[in-house]
Amino acid sequence: MKDRKLLMIPGPIEFTPEVLQAMGLPTTSHLAPNFADVFGQAIERLREVVMAPRSQPFIVAGSGTLAMDMTAANLMEPGDKAIVVNIGYFSERFIAILERYGAQVTRIDPPVVGDTPRLEAVEAALKQGDFKLMTITQVDTSTGVLADVRSLAYLGQQYGTLVVVDGVCSVAGEELRAEEWGVDLVLSASQKALGVPPGLAVVIAGERAMEAFRRRKTPVQNYYADWTNWLPVMEGYEARKPIYFGTPPVNLIWALNVSLGQILEEGMEARFARHRQMSAAFKAGMTAMGLQLVPVSLEKAAHTLSTVYYPDGVDARLLGLINQAGIIVAGGRHPALGDRYFRVGHMGAVTRSDILATVGAVEWALARSGHRFEVGAGVAAAERVLAE
Amino acid sequence: MKDRKLLMIPGPIEFTPEVLQAMGLPTTSHLAPNFADVFGQAIERLREVVMAPRSQPFIVAGSGTLAMDMTAANLMEPGDKAIVVNIGYFSERFIAILERYGAQVTRIDPPVVGDTPRLEAVEAALKQGDFKLMTITQVDTSTGVLADVRSLAYLGQQYGTLVVVDGVCSVAGEELRAEEWGVDLVLSASQKALGVPPGLAVVIAGERAMEAFRRRKTPVQNYYADWTNWLPVMEGYEARKPIYFGTPPVNLIWALNVSLGQILEEGMEARFARHRQMSAAFKAGMTAMGLQLVPVSLEKAAHTLSTVYYPDGVDARLLGLINQAGIIVAGGRHPALGDRYFRVGHMGAVTRSDILATVGAVEWALARSGHRFEVGAGVAAAERVLAE
Repeated sequence: MKDRKLLMIPGPIEFTPEVLQAMGLPTTSHLAPNFADVFGQAIERLREVVMAPRSQPFIVAGSGTLAMDMTAANLMEPGDKAIVVNIGYFSERFIAILERYGAQVTRIDPPVVGDTPRLEAVEAALKQGDFKLMTITQVDTSTGVLADVRSLAYLGQQYGTLVVVDGVCSVAGEELRAEEWGVDLVLSASQKALGVPPGLAVVIAGERAMEAFRRRKTPVQNYYADWTNWLPVMEGYEARKPIYFGTPPVNLIWALNVSLGQILEEGMEARFARHRQMSAAFKAGMTAMGLQLVPVSLEKAAHTLSTVYYPDGVDARLLGLINQAGIIVAGGRHPALGDRYFRVGHMGAVTRSDILATVGAVEWALARSGHRFEVGAGVAAAERVLAE
Repeated sequence: MKDRKLLMIPGPIEFTPEVLQAMGLPTTSHLAPNFADVFGQAIERLREVVMAPRSQPFIVAGSGTLAMDMTAANLMEPGDKAIVVNIGYFSERFIAILERYGAQVTRIDPPVVGDTPRLEAVEAALKQGDFKLMTITQVDTSTGVLADVRSLAYLGQQYGTLVVVDGVCSVAGEELRAEEWGVDLVLSASQKALGVPPGLAVVIAGERAMEAFRRRKTPVQNYYADWTNWLPVMEGYEARKPIYFGTPPVNLIWALNVSLGQILEEGMEARFARHRQMSAAFKAGMTAMGLQLVPVSLEKAAHTLSTVYYPDGVDARLLGLINQAGIIVAGGRHPALGDRYFRVGHMGAVTRSDILATVGAVEWALARSGHRFEVGAGVAAAERVLAE
């Protein structure tokens, strides 16, 4: 499918051999006892990964957008007020999704793209309205910006709003302690730091979110996403007594359970630390070559991916050269930034070797693009961080 | 995942080694040129499989229920009238889905479970109302009943209603000539006769269905299922110019394209004939052992699966014995029939060996359950059909 090239985009990523092997196993019945064990265990493990022991996970065939849609469809009723902390393209998509279910949305924009909204601006908005829900994109894949979920969730709880974290590009990579921080719902997708090929939407709903769902006065507008259909299924599989609603994606769920086992074996603290180190090494490599990051500061930069401006005189043709050097990276995705930057994922099973190879490929491509810098400075800077 | 047991449920089924190999390939970027080729080709091939050369296919991460939901969400507006030709559990589910989007649904029930509604009853209903849409479940997985899509679609066209075929358990197994028969939309899922592990919803919308979608006066109520989001993506991949909305399930789509290639290599006519023969052989085996089918006649019985009543004195414990004999079959799924019958899938890559093995396992299990019959009569009857 991709020969020996390294896939270093912000999802899908490089998956472990064990996960890929699970993908290719001869499929069993979705009602088989050993599949019920696997599905049930995946549900239990998801709680551990996001540190939300009292939550209700949902694992459904779909994409990260379905996870966002499921959240909005089940928690919003026409006229409900929501607040969106905007750090990029995917935060803005949440506005459109919430509005589809009749929500009145207040958006809090950052001072500039690459920055996060000020906490004071969020608090000022929270003071004014009776918001049912606040969404926070922990990492926006379009900008590479990291939101301060802990502080925002604290604010949200103070003002009695449900705190929803879009963790598509962060869960199992960025530090996230859902219950401790007061996060009421975390949503994600399989193909990023969760380490499974694309095809699964994941929603982990805390007690307050489930309570808000149960108190709805109107039916959920969306049939497929309706928790009324899925809750008995998730409870059934967790009790190892399969219940049917739609045929679950057996191979993907088998692969998810393999990946979750690997994630928990590494340990969440070690995993957060590894992502911080890989990110620091990659970013050090970029800045040593004179490149500039999209996030306004390292504190506001994600650890699961890096977003990097092309230097003067270099454009998106750089991607083709990086590809020639054996690494697949991604172009821009934010309308305001257009084709002025590229994106590199470094999450999940990413290794120090992947980081060096990728920095080296960018270095090779920059040298061929006429960018002036000391060749070798990039990988040397990355290696210094990796050796720490 | 299932050792060497044969998976003979009505989906997921036994998949070919090439399909499973595609599932386990290292994932490439959803924007890679070779993946765009594969996705584009899968779209083109779907048109050939359902014989709808002017249709617009949609391939989305989800289940068959999502395909039903996508159909209703995009074609129904509040107050629209729909008619459901009911042949089982999944026909009835369509009522609930259509109603979710504000449709007024008229249901045409069969005289008894296991039968199809009379054509005259459908026509009488069509005469009375201005129906925007009629749904026909070609094969209802719960009853094993086959609807006469050709005659029903002809009626639907006469009365100017959109004809929707739920082909979850029929596409690529049962004869279906969408454009020739006047079918406006076919929906399906990956894990049945399309021959790919579960995780893909498939909708193939004809020109009149797309036209009805374009004429909507209200926004689609469901964000994830909205064709407004997916149409540019499908058009983009078909033009080999990937466009992003949600990350497509790369491995599943790669596997789908492999399976569609195998289906078209066999040829649709040969495939329909093989399904008819496999079904006839299996059903001959069952009746030779004195068992009775759920469908009221062979003309109304699906060729992709068989639904069989337990004989007197035998109950659902038979499934455990069949499993001991190496074959996984399914229990009942229709509320009115309860636990009085079992279901056996024989579609997709099913072989004559699978049929003999499965009839033999039922025979072995029946002999151990105290059912009185001439042991060997089942496989002999099946073999006679297979040798034709």
